[in-house]
Amino acid sequence: MLTIECSTTLITLQGEEEIREKVLDERPFSVTLNDEVIGSAMVLATDLEEFAAGFLFGQGYLNRGDRVLEIRVCPEGRIDVYADVQFNRDEEMITTSGCGGTGKIASRLLHEKLPQLSSLKIDFTQLGELIKKTLSSSDLSQQTHCVHGCGYLTEKGFEACFEDVGRHNAVDKVMGAIIMGRFSSAGAIYTTGRLTSDMVLKCARMGVPIVLSRTAPSSLGLEIARKAGITLGAYVRPNRVNVFNAPHRIIPG
Amino acid sequence: MLTIECSTTLITLQGEEEIREKVLDERPFSVTLNDEVIGSAMVLATDLEEFAAGFLFGQGYLNRGDRVLEIRVCPEGRIDVYADVQFNRDEEMITTSGCGGTGKIASRLLHEKLPQLSSLKIDFTQLGELIKKTLSSSDLSQQTHCVHGCGYLTEKGFEACFEDVGRHNAVDKVMGAIIMGRFSSAGAIYTTGRLTSDMVLKCARMGVPIVLSRTAPSSLGLEIARKAGITLGAYVRPNRVNVFNAPHRIIPG
Repeated sequence: MLTIECSTTLITLQGEEEIREKVLDERPFSVTLNDEVIGSAMVLATDLEEFAAGFLFGQGYLNRGDRVLEIRVCPEGRIDVYADVQFNRDEEMITTSGCGGTGKIASRLLHEKLPQLSSLKIDFTQLGELIKKTLSSSDLSQQTHCVHGCGYLTEKGFEACFEDVGRHNAVDKVMGAIIMGRFSSAGAIYTTGRLTSDMVLKCARMGVPIVLSRTAPSSLGLEIARKAGITLGAYVRPNRVNVFNAPHRIIPG
Repeated sequence: MLTIECSTTLITLQGEEEIREKVLDERPFSVTLNDEVIGSAMVLATDLEEFAAGFLFGQGYLNRGDRVLEIRVCPEGRIDVYADVQFNRDEEMITTSGCGGTGKIASRLLHEKLPQLSSLKIDFTQLGELIKKTLSSSDLSQQTHCVHGCGYLTEKGFEACFEDVGRHNAVDKVMGAIIMGRFSSAGAIYTTGRLTSDMVLKCARMGVPIVLSRTAPSSLGLEIARKAGITLGAYVRPNRVNVFNAPHRIIPG
């Protein structure tokens, strides 16, 4: 059950009225890596394997190309990830604007060498498909006004859409799916949330060449896109995209 | 300088056009408490004293009633807070949906005894003032589409509005101002962001009796409001509020 129905009191200048509303079911989940607890996050309990792999990636415990061996979800609130990696828990972490449960990143990630990006290009037919399929993937957002969506498209077409209480968790679910080998990293990602620094950094570290948002980037998000060579599009609609960096990957007309 | 102007390429079905856009200046700041580094966050560099005090409050290093002795902002990216407190850095932390740089809270905070709330009530005149003054406090949001606002009102009237790249940082700036003794905790807070668990928990721990949002609560946000006895209003407009808990503090008509 992803929503909870409750009774509310609508108060207006004309008086009071009882009405029913649906709220999004936000739940705490902790994530372990090789039996060590890494952190806990408040999430929408969908695609939890992808979330856990992406959460570990976002914080730098997993990297592009690392091999995930097994992921087990315990419905009472824990996701256990086993991967063929060594890690260091005592790094300096930065708290980010993480609207999505993954509010910290290791400081070193801001200075790491970024992977080479694919020369993938997309046209307006693909752009329209990515946006429409992402926004229509469920009616959770319309019911609760408390969900961010994140869609992903590769040369093979529209791959998937993930949703979460936060824009970061939704991106993490895409990153997790890539880490798990479900999709190629040479794709276009579309988020309903803002492209702040950590949102773009995750995509840059994963090697995703096209990063699109329904809304705005921040200065640091743009700076990371420039450093990585990412095509960063904002205020994206099926018939327009405002490209802040590397417009050559969007085919006009 | 809170915004940066940049050149972008608007691509449509009709072709390409160079246009200018403003992006919000998102910056990393670290926060120390009694000379110990507590964490770093990506912020909008306004009201940094309030932010730092609120950041430490949000994570449980400061509590309601703690005495802040001095706050010093080093513009290159550090805020030093000195307070008459003892603290423990080795607690279990939970990463939250923190859209605003304060993405973690100590686990114990979820189970702590909450303060008694004031019986403050507000009417639609006050509600309208709170909303209008918050939304018109600057043109940053309109320029960059990358800002959350958070306004605060007490018996004395509208107190202040704070803005930040994230909804959590903006709430933290209000919490910091209360900790610093600028306003009473018996007030109504209005945020442009969603009321997820950590947003409501901060208000509950501070003893703020009325918590209002332009948009939706999550299930855990509502659960904490119920436990604390907070009046939680969502989808708030100058002439209507949808109250999810404790409607008696909103005077109809």
